[in-house]
Amino acid sequence: MSIQSWSVIRRVRSYLWDTQKLSIKKQGLVICPVRHKHLPPKLVSQMFIKFGKMPEVSPFSSKSHELFLFRSVLYPCHPGGFHLLPLGQRVLDKLIKIIDQEMEMIGAQKLSLTTLAPKAVWSQSGRWESTGAELFKLKDRDKKEYCLGPTHEELVTDMVRDLYLLKAAYPLKLYQITRKFRDEAHPRFGLLRGREFEMKDLYTFDRTLENARNTYDIVCNAYTEIFKRLDLKVIKAEAAVGNIGGSLSHEFHLESEVGEDRVYKCLQCGHVANAEVTGMNDEKKPFCSKCGSNKLQQLSCIEVGHSFLLGTKYSEVFKAAYNQEGVGKSWLEMGCYGLGVTRLLQAMVEVNCLETRLKWPKVVAPYQVCVIPQKEGFMSYDLFNDAHRLATELNNMDKLKGEVFMDDRIKRSIGQRLWDMKNLGIPYVVIVSSLDEGRMTGMYELQDVYKDQVYMLSECELIETLNLFAKTV
Amino acid sequence: MSIQSWSVIRRVRSYLWDTQKLSIKKQGLVICPVRHKHLPPKLVSQMFIKFGKMPEVSPFSSKSHELFLFRSVLYPCHPGGFHLLPLGQRVLDKLIKIIDQEMEMIGAQKLSLTTLAPKAVWSQSGRWESTGAELFKLKDRDKKEYCLGPTHEELVTDMVRDLYLLKAAYPLKLYQITRKFRDEAHPRFGLLRGREFEMKDLYTFDRTLENARNTYDIVCNAYTEIFKRLDLKVIKAEAAVGNIGGSLSHEFHLESEVGEDRVYKCLQCGHVANAEVTGMNDEKKPFCSKCGSNKLQQLSCIEVGHSFLLGTKYSEVFKAAYNQEGVGKSWLEMGCYGLGVTRLLQAMVEVNCLETRLKWPKVVAPYQVCVIPQKEGFMSYDLFNDAHRLATELNNMDKLKGEVFMDDRIKRSIGQRLWDMKNLGIPYVVIVSSLDEGRMTGMYELQDVYKDQVYMLSECELIETLNLFAKTV
Repeated sequence: MSIQSWSVIRRVRSYLWDTQKLSIKKQGLVICPVRHKHLPPKLVSQMFIKFGKMPEVSPFSSKSHELFLFRSVLYPCHPGGFHLLPLGQRVLDKLIKIIDQEMEMIGAQKLSLTTLAPKAVWSQSGRWESTGAELFKLKDRDKKEYCLGPTHEELVTDMVRDLYLLKAAYPLKLYQITRKFRDEAHPRFGLLRGREFEMKDLYTFDRTLENARNTYDIVCNAYTEIFKRLDLKVIKAEAAVGNIGGSLSHEFHLESEVGEDRVYKCLQCGHVANAEVTGMNDEKKPFCSKCGSNKLQQLSCIEVGHSFLLGTKYSEVFKAAYNQEGVGKSWLEMGCYGLGVTRLLQAMVEVNCLETRLKWPKVVAPYQVCVIPQKEGFMSYDLFNDAHRLATELNNMDKLKGEVFMDDRIKRSIGQRLWDMKNLGIPYVVIVSSLDEGRMTGMYELQDVYKDQVYMLSECELIETLNLFAKTV
Repeated sequence: MSIQSWSVIRRVRSYLWDTQKLSIKKQGLVICPVRHKHLPPKLVSQMFIKFGKMPEVSPFSSKSHELFLFRSVLYPCHPGGFHLLPLGQRVLDKLIKIIDQEMEMIGAQKLSLTTLAPKAVWSQSGRWESTGAELFKLKDRDKKEYCLGPTHEELVTDMVRDLYLLKAAYPLKLYQITRKFRDEAHPRFGLLRGREFEMKDLYTFDRTLENARNTYDIVCNAYTEIFKRLDLKVIKAEAAVGNIGGSLSHEFHLESEVGEDRVYKCLQCGHVANAEVTGMNDEKKPFCSKCGSNKLQQLSCIEVGHSFLLGTKYSEVFKAAYNQEGVGKSWLEMGCYGLGVTRLLQAMVEVNCLETRLKWPKVVAPYQVCVIPQKEGFMSYDLFNDAHRLATELNNMDKLKGEVFMDDRIKRSIGQRLWDMKNLGIPYVVIVSSLDEGRMTGMYELQDVYKDQVYMLSECELIETLNLFAKTV
């Protein structure tokens, strides 16, 4: 087939094009953003992304932190405070969607508690004084004192006290995903130890301890499900129950060199626990809390979640009770369950990424597909058109809605742009280039970036393959 | 048809039931929440809703505020600070989805800026001092000062300065939807004048003033689109340009008696402007800025949005420039656009609600459909089963995914529960009750709450009708 007829095929294929209102300006090809029925793909030239070389990795930080700073995920504002840029925001929104879905599955109800927590409420639990310098405190214009909530046991229990719910309402599971504050003495590693962060905090209320234990298992399973969907190997470690009798506590960790937490895995039975549980912090010889063995392996970890059966610690303080006819009042049995959402956002990259490349759990990658058209030059107009049509079509597939963008920086070579996309961790790249000897007419090159594989596919095959491979929440 | 065969029909219809694992306990009908393929409808007995009579409306507050407090939308925490309860959270999430969609349509990119804004940055613009007591200020453990961002012109411009974007990247439109803080002297009317609130703030950057004016129109149109989707009559009022020459400003209002803003409508040409523009605040006689007429009508309004062509006010301070080859540097022309999201959440109810009933713009109502089964008693088991099956089926329709719940408080009469659902502003109620003389076998009663109409429909018709009537984001 001649190059001429090839060009004709491309033209004929552009049937969707008229909806896109391409305007060709003298300086090149510019797409006017207007309101579309079809969602047009975003263009890299218009996106808030900076491309460039990575500096030498600083020994004081972590791979993920450096990558986030130089791959347009974060922008530093103050020590431990970061602006999340559009690429990072998309990942965050997807993470939140997954968490919301799994919380919905276990009947948890989402709400938003206030950020400003009155001193009176925090004094009632004793934590206003006991929390120390980590609490950000401030006064309003009437000199009334507040802290910026780092967690919300006080506020939620204080509210639940006022309700007289029916028996069927228990277990009551209330959660929020909001910004929390902790005045860390040494903020570092970006979002891994920040002073502002998004956290999911879930509080559960049960009528009896037995029910609360059951709720505890249900929530822990939901956590496991979340990590499974993110393809993350999570380590669930037994944590010290502290001075609240009969309680349970677990930490959820991702293993990583930069992790500041230490957990201990028993080489005999596989049980994992934190230092306190194994007695590692005492003068005694450490041992496995399950089988008693003292063959323990230390793992460096990033803590991304914790669960805690609180018992009646807060419900007693705030007089949150269940009133049963004939039996009388009993304090509600509580549980609290945290998930560091922005910490997870970075931790999941820290454990996955390569030296210069971001690698996301595929399901939360900021975009699933990037389409790269031919470099400026011979036939580039047709190929640009075709790439844009293809990107639009992919971007309007049910599965890939809003997940496709196009690298329109046609002054750069395909190779350069492919390299950039690999660095951003975009799972799939489709290349629309001119015919050359090794390629068949009408075929597209699909790069599976995470598997490092290349396919030559017809449009039909391309659509089918992406429908099969791409992952969306 | 006999009652017996009617009951058989109901049984046969329960083919979906086995996926739901109904367990019948002695005290009644209880559904075990387990992980389902089909999303089961939520049950009112398990939902965070309090039902009860409204107290007398306090003259110091507004209808919507009272309704929000007594219809499980808000819980007060501190003056001007409210917890948003699950019903309200669902509405908020839908509002945010609509805003996100419309922002996406105009190519705006979402991000999150920090809440803590360093004093140094706010001093640079002069606003650390000029803002006054409304700014919440605090110190960290190293005595460094911050404010809780009430708006983010400083932080976003300070960041954009560091970027060297291509020409195609402009107009750059960056927005966030985050919690803002303002230490109001007199917080009141719930979310209408609060001290913590969710705001959407968009910042735009253009290379030239002409482009910036164009961007301004595009954003204002997107705002109009948002209000249109919410079925709200928005009043766009010309606002004073202040001391920044050549700038534009508009306020977006909802007309309401409790509104603390005043705008003036020209009875001759219909133009609307705020007090400053009409000269109402000066000693001169007020006049229409468009046609010069002095026949002006005063309207009480709630401001829900504003737009402002900022010019180079902040870009000069923070040295945010566009560097054009051959021409040199020019300061970026900025615009800022706010939308009070939680204020809108309440204002849209304030202008719509009835004395004791919430009324939402249908598209953002917390749920679209409530299914009410027969009161406990004769045949109630079959009808409860059928209602649950129907609710499950509706809840798994593409259009109604997650939008259907069931009022399982079967000790109460249908009428009582219908009344409760009307008070919550649920647009559609389906009643599954036993045969009585006026009703045909196999028919369901559909109540269109907002239109106050009742239909008797077969299951097929019911599904078709809801598919047509119900609105989802």
